[in-house]
Amino acid sequence: MIRAGIVGYGYWGPNLARAVAESGLLSVEMIADRSAPALERAGRRHPSTRMTTDWRSLVADPSIDAVLVATPVDTHFEIALAALKAGKHVLVEKPITDKVATAAILVEEAARRRLVLMVDHTFVYTGAVRKIAELVSSGAIGDVYYYDSTRVNLGLFQRDVNVIWDLAVHDFSILDHLLTARPVAVSASGAGFVPDSPENMAHLSIYYDDGALAHLNVNWLAPVKIRQTLIGGSRRMVIYDDMQTSEKVKVYDRGVMAGECASPSRESLVSYRIGEMSAPVISSREALVTEMEEFARCIASNARPITCGESGLRVVEMLAAATRSMALRGQPMELAPERLAS
Amino acid sequence: MIRAGIVGYGYWGPNLARAVAESGLLSVEMIADRSAPALERAGRRHPSTRMTTDWRSLVADPSIDAVLVATPVDTHFEIALAALKAGKHVLVEKPITDKVATAAILVEEAARRRLVLMVDHTFVYTGAVRKIAELVSSGAIGDVYYYDSTRVNLGLFQRDVNVIWDLAVHDFSILDHLLTARPVAVSASGAGFVPDSPENMAHLSIYYDDGALAHLNVNWLAPVKIRQTLIGGSRRMVIYDDMQTSEKVKVYDRGVMAGECASPSRESLVSYRIGEMSAPVISSREALVTEMEEFARCIASNARPITCGESGLRVVEMLAAATRSMALRGQPMELAPERLAS
Amino acid sequence: MIRAGIVGYGYWGPNLARAVAESGLLSVEMIADRSAPALERAGRRHPSTRMTTDWRSLVADPSIDAVLVATPVDTHFEIALAALKAGKHVLVEKPITDKVATAAILVEEAARRRLVLMVDHTFVYTGAVRKIAELVSSGAIGDVYYYDSTRVNLGLFQRDVNVIWDLAVHDFSILDHLLTARPVAVSASGAGFVPDSPENMAHLSIYYDDGALAHLNVNWLAPVKIRQTLIGGSRRMVIYDDMQTSEKVKVYDRGVMAGECASPSRESLVSYRIGEMSAPVISSREALVTEMEEFARCIASNARPITCGESGLRVVEMLAAATRSMALRGQPMELAPERLAS
Amino acid sequence: MIRAGIVGYGYWGPNLARAVAESGLLSVEMIADRSAPALERAGRRHPSTRMTTDWRSLVADPSIDAVLVATPVDTHFEIALAALKAGKHVLVEKPITDKVATAAILVEEAARRRLVLMVDHTFVYTGAVRKIAELVSSGAIGDVYYYDSTRVNLGLFQRDVNVIWDLAVHDFSILDHLLTARPVAVSASGAGFVPDSPENMAHLSIYYDDGALAHLNVNWLAPVKIRQTLIGGSRRMVIYDDMQTSEKVKVYDRGVMAGECASPSRESLVSYRIGEMSAPVISSREALVTEMEEFARCIASNARPITCGESGLRVVEMLAAATRSMALRGQPMELAPERLAS
Repeated sequence: MIRAGIVGYGYWGPNLARAVAESGLLSVEMIADRSAPALERAGRRHPSTRMTTDWRSLVADPSIDAVLVATPVDTHFEIALAALKAGKHVLVEKPITDKVATAAILVEEAARRRLVLMVDHTFVYTGAVRKIAELVSSGAIGDVYYYDSTRVNLGLFQRDVNVIWDLAVHDFSILDHLLTARPVAVSASGAGFVPDSPENMAHLSIYYDDGALAHLNVNWLAPVKIRQTLIGGSRRMVIYDDMQTSEKVKVYDRGVMAGECASPSRESLVSYRIGEMSAPVISSREALVTEMEEFARCIASNARPITCGESGLRVVEMLAAATRSMALRGQPMELAPERLAS
Repeated sequence: MIRAGIVGYGYWGPNLARAVAESGLLSVEMIADRSAPALERAGRRHPSTRMTTDWRSLVADPSIDAVLVATPVDTHFEIALAALKAGKHVLVEKPITDKVATAAILVEEAARRRLVLMVDHTFVYTGAVRKIAELVSSGAIGDVYYYDSTRVNLGLFQRDVNVIWDLAVHDFSILDHLLTARPVAVSASGAGFVPDSPENMAHLSIYYDDGALAHLNVNWLAPVKIRQTLIGGSRRMVIYDDMQTSEKVKVYDRGVMAGECASPSRESLVSYRIGEMSAPVISSREALVTEMEEFARCIASNARPITCGESGLRVVEMLAAATRSMALRGQPMELAPERLAS
Repeated sequence: MIRAGIVGYGYWGPNLARAVAESGLLSVEMIADRSAPALERAGRRHPSTRMTTDWRSLVADPSIDAVLVATPVDTHFEIALAALKAGKHVLVEKPITDKVATAAILVEEAARRRLVLMVDHTFVYTGAVRKIAELVSSGAIGDVYYYDSTRVNLGLFQRDVNVIWDLAVHDFSILDHLLTARPVAVSASGAGFVPDSPENMAHLSIYYDDGALAHLNVNWLAPVKIRQTLIGGSRRMVIYDDMQTSEKVKVYDRGVMAGECASPSRESLVSYRIGEMSAPVISSREALVTEMEEFARCIASNARPITCGESGLRVVEMLAAATRSMALRGQPMELAPERLAS
Repeated sequence: MIRAGIVGYGYWGPNLARAVAESGLLSVEMIADRSAPALERAGRRHPSTRMTTDWRSLVADPSIDAVLVATPVDTHFEIALAALKAGKHVLVEKPITDKVATAAILVEEAARRRLVLMVDHTFVYTGAVRKIAELVSSGAIGDVYYYDSTRVNLGLFQRDVNVIWDLAVHDFSILDHLLTARPVAVSASGAGFVPDSPENMAHLSIYYDDGALAHLNVNWLAPVKIRQTLIGGSRRMVIYDDMQTSEKVKVYDRGVMAGECASPSRESLVSYRIGEMSAPVISSREALVTEMEEFARCIASNARPITCGESGLRVVEMLAAATRSMALRGQPMELAPERLAS
């Protein structure tokens, strides 16, 4: 049993604590939060767990094997670095940090100490995304042409983070997991409609070195909640609709074929293939529990997690580049080729 | 009764001819097409109409008051200009021409001769768009913050025109009709996945001088047909789903209000307003017939049509700028301020 | 080429005439209608067809091989009988007649004269129903447990026919085609909410000799149009939603298995099987044209059509029994075992 | 604070206990269950509550004001009667009992002792049903013509109760709440497709003394979950779709008007009214908590609850009559006029 300490018991920490407990592979040894009422709530749900208001004492505690960080993003770096330096494996809520430089330091520190550094990119562990990843890696999709995601809803506006860092982060982590191609540039447009508030709407285009194009539409000010992703491939196409209770993933055996021009009409360049649609069975296992199993597996076998620190760093690079492009009305930002290998 | 001549009886011409006949305000005097089988088809449906293979004789015919042009886009300029010079009122299929310069010449020629020059931006005349225009102009929407349109389907790939000129043209004409703000820049990303074929997928962001942002997602290679537009305003928000047989337009009494921060939490910047949704009654009158009535009204009263030549020119400016931006991976294109007044 | 005469050119006759012409296997030789304007409309669309206001002359015309009857239902019997007696093959709009006795006479007359008698149960020829029939006959569905159809919309109220004869007739013909089991009883409930108008809402249950149960929900006074049928089988289940433009038929690899009681809980009687859903490709060929091909095939080869006179008679038996049951608040009506063989 | 004792901590008891605690108006004083593990689970969630394996000691405990019964339905009568005889107010899980006779005894006992007897018909307390009740009672719907509910899904099969007692019970309680008309007869059809298992599919028609017709379609063997109710009225119509996360209730300003026959066509009996659709704001307050407030209010003020014992008795009468009709293939069952007043 891996003994886990959780830093931060606000919005997301309780979910991590519960998933740790349910995994059966890690135990909730200790919880740290500055707020006494938060610790009281934690105590009711985890009566045998030690509580502290001082995260440094948790990080320093010799009985702790792994630290899970669920604090505001601007504190991730300090806490995660301290935990790594104390020899703990670390799981950090997304995004890993708020700057490329600090994310890179965490990655290096974990590598040097041969510790597991993992980012809580939860969507990657959902049954739907795992099924799509299987379809991509098995070749069922063929070459991935595009990934086109709409992730909009009404609120919640964040005080200090724009909508890219809040919502696009999910798609960047999914893209990092699904695609083997390398992103080479990003162009983003956005706007904010609430005074003194960061951008609440953004559209991002990501160019890949194999010609694929990803697009993310994120918005905190939409009348309804939409979570829909179209994925186009040379063999099949996918619609992933996370608002559906069943049939979240639909696979379409459809596409175009470049071909001979039968007639000289202006529309006869290509022919179409229209085959069956199918909705595969999706695992309903809770993503967070699957994620905890991955964390435990990597700690036990000294393996690199699916959502490793490097993937977290790549996601932050994308978030930062997109934010820069957005400030320049879509000016494309080239992405450095010397990115860390996956 | 206005005597109309139709040039081009291929894909779209028959629809124009039928709408002319059904309007009761114009008559189908003459039809021109180079193809004999096309004229034969035309003759069966319009037995009392004169047919010709020579559009120049139609344009020159003194019995014709108005010319409707439904030929390939690269021939629009020559035919429309000849018709104007012959003193005819002109309705041109969208887009008005394939270049800004030629569109501007048509606009000037029509103005000089005080003839009606109208573009067949059909969507502007649908019951749904007319209802949305009413909601915007009445103030029910409040300030328009954004217009976010998804217009994707499988095919038809065009031989010589990219997806922007084929699909985004609809949204540009709707935007030109709905918004009073001036577009100041456009950024576009796109890709083509069929060899030797123009771009089949594009994302366009249009910046307006009042801070509004429009976004268009167009794609010929999507597994299903989606025609969905979200419009966000300071008072209400709209979802326009053209694939619905009923309830195409839904109006949401929802939004955010910047306000006092009750608690110091990171998510409490704004408060939300969640009110009723309503789907107003939409006229089911056919758009093309409404459009013919507008054409007849403007000819009779020497008025400027809703989709006048200037609006057609503005749409071509947007299409051209977006295509340039797309070639430069989203590099924003500034739009000249000295655009023609609406 | 089979020479067809069409009696009745009101609401449905023009569709029959068009399908006859498009089939390429029959020709529209003659059209009869009492109304001069109707014949004028017919003449414009079928310029080489002879027109008459006297259906008897059409039926008697030696140049006619087959008569299609698209007149009000209370005239079907007289016209169809006359046509059969004149040695013509006959296709009658649904329902075949308005009484069991007259339907039986037509069936006997056609059998005696070895003429094709077919009913225009159009739905049976749609791509969707043909696909479902294939799924049933191939064993993919397994034993059919139930057929549960909802067929509701707003209007059109009929003057002299209740909603069962107008809407349930479609499901009865589909059931007659899909199922090999014999219906043994029917129970129906209904109500009319418009004064001096027949019942506009009805619910029908049909019991089959193998234990299957069909249910039809028909209503002229629903706020929206619903055309949805659930079909449950021992192996698979189907949802047929005719309002969908694509994916009209969805096949679910789902069901229950009676099994051992693992635990003594009250809910553990059965276990569930949840597999993939798939939407097969459905032919988009127009049903009426397919139907005309079937008519021509049967005339040419002296074969019995899928929707033969006997099936039309069985449908009328069901309609009549359901109407009787409805008048008695669901009192079940036994169906005679000596029904005509399929 | 009303001191509540809960008998039964299996499937539903924990929900009742939580709602009691969240109401702030009742306290969870005591929980009884025969199962030690159940009591252990209860103890973790309600650490200050007394636990017992003997429901009789709970019922007899002088510190208890009210007893909530969440045991199997065949034990409701004995426990609820004992509680009433001990002077406790009683809330019983639905259905109140499994026989009309025992339900009537409970109602009489509560009336004699002036104690609150309430049934846990939870749906009546949902925001959606409360909104619909408001629309009916305010006259917005006009005369209610019909209530047509589809409540189907895959499982769970019950061991000893047919699908009517499991699913139709919800609609009967909603109908009892919504309608002021008196049900006069019921006709039901059903079938069971799993050997040695009760009926898993049923269709019920309920006739009202004002001509209204209700219909319930319940099924444990459907491929997908459907929870959809159409309500037709003389002024407006409603669609209540409980599977929607938003817009559960849609109100259609649509209907028919009997009128003059403009033309002698067979379809011109009535004219149609097609107005706006609107989706009102629905309270998202949890139904069970609202229900506990109602229980507390009635105890405090000696009032009759919305879902009083009499309504529970009327629901059982309907369930029993429908089950009898189902055994006779839809034979209508008259309902006694001398039912208890609401």
